Amino acid sequence: MKILITGGGGLVGQKLAKRLAAKGELRGQAIDEVVLADVLDPPAIEAPFKVTTMTGDISKPEDVARMIDGETTVIYHLAAILSGHAEVEFDHGIAVNLMGTLHLLQRAREMETQPVFCYASSIATLGGEVPDPIEDWTATNPQTSYGTQKAAGELLLNDFSRKGFVQGRGVRLPTISVRPGKPNRAASSFMSSIIREPLNGEEAICPVGLDFQHYYLSPRMCVENLVRLAEVEQEALGMNVNMTMPGLTHTISDLLDAMREVAGPEPAQRIRFESQPEIEKIVMGWRYAFNPAKALALGLTADTDYRDNVRYYLEDDKP
Amino acid sequence: MKILITGGGGLVGQKLAKRLAAKGELRGQAIDEVVLADVLDPPAIEAPFKVTTMTGDISKPEDVARMIDGETTVIYHLAAILSGHAEVEFDHGIAVNLMGTLHLLQRAREMETQPVFCYASSIATLGGEVPDPIEDWTATNPQTSYGTQKAAGELLLNDFSRKGFVQGRGVRLPTISVRPGKPNRAASSFMSSIIREPLNGEEAICPVGLDFQHYYLSPRMCVENLVRLAEVEQEALGMNVNMTMPGLTHTISDLLDAMREVAGPEPAQRIRFESQPEIEKIVMGWRYAFNPAKALALGLTADTDYRDNVRYYLEDDKP
Repeated sequence: MKILITGGGGLVGQKLAKRLAAKGELRGQAIDEVVLADVLDPPAIEAPFKVTTMTGDISKPEDVARMIDGETTVIYHLAAILSGHAEVEFDHGIAVNLMGTLHLLQRAREMETQPVFCYASSIATLGGEVPDPIEDWTATNPQTSYGTQKAAGELLLNDFSRKGFVQGRGVRLPTISVRPGKPNRAASSFMSSIIREPLNGEEAICPVGLDFQHYYLSPRMCVENLVRLAEVEQEALGMNVNMTMPGLTHTISDLLDAMREVAGPEPAQRIRFESQPEIEKIVMGWRYAFNPAKALALGLTADTDYRDNVRYYLEDDKP
Repeated sequence: MKILITGGGGLVGQKLAKRLAAKGELRGQAIDEVVLADVLDPPAIEAPFKVTTMTGDISKPEDVARMIDGETTVIYHLAAILSGHAEVEFDHGIAVNLMGTLHLLQRAREMETQPVFCYASSIATLGGEVPDPIEDWTATNPQTSYGTQKAAGELLLNDFSRKGFVQGRGVRLPTISVRPGKPNRAASSFMSSIIREPLNGEEAICPVGLDFQHYYLSPRMCVENLVRLAEVEQEALGMNVNMTMPGLTHTISDLLDAMREVAGPEPAQRIRFESQPEIEKIVMGWRYAFNPAKALALGLTADTDYRDNVRYYLEDDKP
């Protein structure tokens, strides 16, 4: 089988590709080829199958046409303009997050092969004046343009699935922490920086207070869930193929306590608390109490507690 | 003030324009001009202000540019490819319902005048495996392409409002009954035909059983609600500017009983019950139990009972 990963140069895309390389098969079929597509040429990975890297912009239908062909069996659509970025570059967010998703769905439909279409949505789709906890059937009421565009993509995914054009399934990713590498343009970027930088011996800024609550998942578990997502039978998804990916709700205090337990008291002393109103404005609109019942029933899982997230960073990613 | 009505040649567009003509003002300001835009040249109406009719297709940005200018204070976006039609012509639905709405919002944004943008959504956005009754914060989970495209438009409307590009407010219209005129391409078309045709002395076909429940509103009350919608202050709308318009839930029996009470026993005998699987498949996916709390709090209202709907048809519309 042939697998496309959009955003194939990103953190999750690269880790997913490596996991697929270790696994060698998906949905009970041997993997013949993985295509990693991204706006900047994505790094290739070592694998027992063919790995194709491709530069392309999903906001352009002609680029999308190169990414998907009649052989493409599974599509992981991870590419996105992230929250902080889409808030500043509104039209760019529409072009990539909304139109890009539509172009991928239309191209997949054109193939008439009903590929499995795994869509990375986000908990940024959720918010507003809705009761806690947020169920799989609570309204998406995003308070960012990124969340809006992702939520519109969920609707399209569901309809393209209902029509039999694709075998769609969408998951709202919790905030991935600890992300390796450099800060990105997500408003949630600090939710990794405050653990990663101190563990790397560097200073970090935390723009919110110790009692700020949020919903987290480790990169390792996120990738396991994405693998599982592709393997779910279409019939098991019901009338809405979108769901919240399991995660855990923690305060900033919980994160720092876990870091202290795993790595000693020293790293947490490298964190400076400093208000950043633009970031606060976005992240305070996000929700943290979720009941990811559908995903749990389908076999997706969360970490045990945040010490897992710290350990996975040290094991998998620390330079 | 200058008002644009897309779908200005349609039932609701024409009735709204006539209501505005009788009223002469909106939001406390005298109306200077109403622009009626539609794909086929919409009929002009008698009014104490300028009435401009315009042919244009909202799926084309250049047409939308002619519809909205810097003077446009209030936009009523009523144009749509309806449910039965969008189910058959998928790309046409995407082009008009999704892209058309986006083009209108982008054009309104470009003016930098923050026009009031009243968006006619639909209860077809609601469905799926969600608990009854459907609250304003229940997920949209449309089971038609029309509902999907309308729900995506709601998300965009909310985001364009949050960003301050427009003063958006969206209402999910119940099924309008009794619609005058001819059957249209909505799957719900029979929900007017079975009253209208018999009252006009003609036969009608009912493709569902007597116990089929649905959510209805008269055209007269729908227009009153659209007028009210434009007058609501933006701050009163909260974090989601979309809501269900008040209606009443009735069985087919209720409709026929009301027709008998208002017009005697004879018309109901002109109805033939005859299964239509394509129509049934769509309408059985719709919901009928709603709690339109937000709209009621903002002063929108339902009919008293279905006898109103029958009476309004006889008073306002019967040829």
